[in-house]
Amino acid sequence: MPRTADKNDIPQRLTEAGYLLFTRLGYNATGIQQIADEAGVPKGSFYNHFDSKEAFAAVIIRQYTDWVHEAWGNCVSEAPCQAQDDALGVMRYVFERFIRHHEQATTPGCLVGNFAAEVAESSPTCRAVLGSAMQEWRTLLAGLMALGQQQGQIRTDRSAIDLAAFFWDVWEGALLRMKIEHNSQPLKDAVQLMLDHFLRP
Amino acid sequence: MPRTADKNDIPQRLTEAGYLLFTRLGYNATGIQQIADEAGVPKGSFYNHFDSKEAFAAVIIRQYTDWVHEAWGNCVSEAPCQAQDDALGVMRYVFERFIRHHEQATTPGCLVGNFAAEVAESSPTCRAVLGSAMQEWRTLLAGLMALGQQQGQIRTDRSAIDLAAFFWDVWEGALLRMKIEHNSQPLKDAVQLMLDHFLRP
Repeated sequence: MPRTADKNDIPQRLTEAGYLLFTRLGYNATGIQQIADEAGVPKGSFYNHFDSKEAFAAVIIRQYTDWVHEAWGNCVSEAPCQAQDDALGVMRYVFERFIRHHEQATTPGCLVGNFAAEVAESSPTCRAVLGSAMQEWRTLLAGLMALGQQQGQIRTDRSAIDLAAFFWDVWEGALLRMKIEHNSQPLKDAVQLMLDHFLRP
Repeated sequence: MPRTADKNDIPQRLTEAGYLLFTRLGYNATGIQQIADEAGVPKGSFYNHFDSKEAFAAVIIRQYTDWVHEAWGNCVSEAPCQAQDDALGVMRYVFERFIRHHEQATTPGCLVGNFAAEVAESSPTCRAVLGSAMQEWRTLLAGLMALGQQQGQIRTDRSAIDLAAFFWDVWEGALLRMKIEHNSQPLKDAVQLMLDHFLRP
């Protein structure tokens, strides 16, 4: 996620530290003392701003969701083609950019996927925010999917929303395999199979 | 995983306890003391049998992989059709049984997927065992996939191994979404889209 230079913004320093630690160690292994230390603020500050570790995690998931949403918008507008003419081309561009992001990231992978694995079962609060994240991303992709269907690029035997939900499933699964195989080939293979084979009419 | 009644088998008591705790809390949040307590053995016993928590986790991943491998074999042999006549039908039966398993499990989800999310980046030892697990499962599925291709049930524009790798990606991703949506619909949708739409010639 992008970092700010405002050192006085304690909630933001805490969420940045939390994002780093949750990504590196996971939710359960990260303590509030550790988050405060990483942020360079006294532990008491944490409770001035957040009710609990769970509520804190929910804020971080929300920020991450917004950041992906914004990145999606930027990629769509920077694509060399227009969604109105070539929705499949825009989709290809967006996922190429996302793959590059994971190739360059210090801690690659998706916070929402990681939290789904670790926390979704045990925390209804986190589960709700994770559900919203997935729903928002699904809607973004379904928009392009529907355009592609109208343009005759994408199969129409299933709804745009079903195809988008499936696409995110395979993306999250490929992100897990990326971590195991330690390279981005699983992401490239998954996107290529979707765009050049399975989604075709 | 299946449980044994042999209370004298300390390594097995430890791995059963570890499996339970890793599934419930994750790897990083589970301590060796906690594992020993859950197994009802002194902490010192742990180090009589395992060199480190990482080596211990690798043993558990290996046992889980073998257990899935065995479950796969049982499902294939109990399917109402034969792979030699109807490989797609066997695939459908196997994944229906796997879905039922996750519906009935106390802690649904896949240990390999969870460990991929949490540990694969930081532990080369675990990463290697996770990689073997994925490769074995991929080979099992690719066997059925190749038969389905020979039988004209499955598309042949990509290799059986590519299609199998993709299938496991979407399965692992759908398992994550199952945890978020708190029901097995994502699994059912993913399998149905694969078998009835995307894999078809």
